[in-house]
Amino acid sequence: MSDGPLDVVGIGNAIVDVLSHADDEFLVREGLVKGGMTLIDAARAEALYESMGPTVEVSGGSAANTIAGLANFGGRPGFVGRVRDDRLGAVFAHDLRALGVEFDVAPATEGPPTGRCLILVTPDAQRTLNACLGAGADLGPDDVDEARIARARITFLEGYLWDLPAAKEAFRKATAVAHAHGRKIAFSLSDTFCVDRWREEFVHLAEHEIDVLFANEEEIKSLYRTNSFDDAVRRARERRGIAALTRSEKGSVVVSGDEVHVVDPEPVASVVDTTGAGDLYAAGFLFGLSRGRDLPVCGRLGSIAAGEAIGHMGARPETSLAELARRGLGGIA
Amino acid sequence: MSDGPLDVVGIGNAIVDVLSHADDEFLVREGLVKGGMTLIDAARAEALYESMGPTVEVSGGSAANTIAGLANFGGRPGFVGRVRDDRLGAVFAHDLRALGVEFDVAPATEGPPTGRCLILVTPDAQRTLNACLGAGADLGPDDVDEARIARARITFLEGYLWDLPAAKEAFRKATAVAHAHGRKIAFSLSDTFCVDRWREEFVHLAEHEIDVLFANEEEIKSLYRTNSFDDAVRRARERRGIAALTRSEKGSVVVSGDEVHVVDPEPVASVVDTTGAGDLYAAGFLFGLSRGRDLPVCGRLGSIAAGEAIGHMGARPETSLAELARRGLGGIA
Repeated sequence: MSDGPLDVVGIGNAIVDVLSHADDEFLVREGLVKGGMTLIDAARAEALYESMGPTVEVSGGSAANTIAGLANFGGRPGFVGRVRDDRLGAVFAHDLRALGVEFDVAPATEGPPTGRCLILVTPDAQRTLNACLGAGADLGPDDVDEARIARARITFLEGYLWDLPAAKEAFRKATAVAHAHGRKIAFSLSDTFCVDRWREEFVHLAEHEIDVLFANEEEIKSLYRTNSFDDAVRRARERRGIAALTRSEKGSVVVSGDEVHVVDPEPVASVVDTTGAGDLYAAGFLFGLSRGRDLPVCGRLGSIAAGEAIGHMGARPETSLAELARRGLGGIA
Repeated sequence: MSDGPLDVVGIGNAIVDVLSHADDEFLVREGLVKGGMTLIDAARAEALYESMGPTVEVSGGSAANTIAGLANFGGRPGFVGRVRDDRLGAVFAHDLRALGVEFDVAPATEGPPTGRCLILVTPDAQRTLNACLGAGADLGPDDVDEARIARARITFLEGYLWDLPAAKEAFRKATAVAHAHGRKIAFSLSDTFCVDRWREEFVHLAEHEIDVLFANEEEIKSLYRTNSFDDAVRRARERRGIAALTRSEKGSVVVSGDEVHVVDPEPVASVVDTTGAGDLYAAGFLFGLSRGRDLPVCGRLGSIAAGEAIGHMGARPETSLAELARRGLGGIA
């Protein structure tokens, strides 16, 4: 482990995505809620995999995708999450380290296998997630190294962690350490069902702990129990800190108190798979923020990364985001 | 195992592809010959994987890609190849069976793991293959079920099999059985280095055993030791049977004695990765041929499938080839 400064440390589920195309009837037949994330056990994962079409496997995990994107932009990130000492665990670790991500949580030598997420991509490019967390579910406060959190300008946490008691403790520890060192906490609401499960706690976190809040339109409306995005934006502005609110093809709105920026989406030739669009938006945004860029540039970098992710199967970038940023930012870079 | 008729049975290496982007300097540093296929052992595979960037894993194998494409067109194919009872073996089998491919060679319970191919995709979309055949190398004549060969209109074999003595015997057995039942043999030259290793035997096969010969421009020129594609076409016309000769962005030339058809390539928005372009061309061509289409339509179907394959990472189709064919063939379907 190096001891230089880090831009961002991500804490989240270590997962390899297993993606296939499916039609809407498949979702109905399997009882899946389109666009959602469902936690499944190993037996259900096996049965669902059997019924899926041919698959593509790519490393995933919400915060891990953000961290991979940030490394691809040229940032210096670290990641905290748990894998098993199995083949998927080796793939997950390889794909982070190949990007220069600091990742050294020792793989578990017993217990459940490395987590995977079975993803159905429908013809509308929407993705429906079925996550079997496996070894990832054992993430706990002991995995959070205080020195690493202290070295990172920003610690980024995914809302999904809140579903697991030990991970929630890891979350609390990371938040306390970061703030004790004058560092920032960024947080993604992850999923509307996740918001439904933890609304009161998430509202409390948003008001008191979170410096940079990521949410899509549905999640932020759910958080504040409103049908109006405009209402939700107003609520988000009342809290201390930044909120970056993504709206798919309508781009994003970035707010911080009196500042409100409406950010256009990147033009995309063909929308193939929206898996990871939010994660990659966060990657671009946090890369900009950690390098001291102003909010409109952070939003642009988010749009650029999200635009790349939706052009192919899987969340992880397949082209150089650093290069896309150089071209896309032009004069403002 | 069903006992209905099959369009095509493929025999080849059972392989899962592990793809990453790389620049030309990476190939030089690793001593790799761009565009070629190198057989590597497990230790070399491990070392090369460590030095590769983040990867995408997709089922592969030359003949297996062709068979997957044919199933995607709506054909009824079977596949013969060997996997181990490990995770990659399960992935390979899943991805064929999910398409309705008849595939029932029992996985090996001991010996080397399922084969994989480490693929570097350079910015020019060229792919450089490093195959660790693993369990696939144990393919032998006992794996070739006579009844299945007899049920298939066409048996398709990849040239790569010729590198392995037992697979070569499987090849000879399949050829003899197919011809004894009045069936056709299709064959791909696979790779210029493969042609270099086995030129005399391949020329003999092309003259006496092969009903449908697939080759790209470099392979057919190497086979006939000529620098002129026009010369190579003339030689291909002198043999009995069909030859489908692919030329990347120049499309393909399909010949059968006096018949010569020049087939245009499909327009492609963005060429991402040429892995499997030849395999998928063969898929479309053989689908047409097995359904009694004339040679220009077979060539068009080949172009359509190849055009789909080069638009994304990995060889296996990510969209419905049956649908692309319906749209692309229009009036002539």
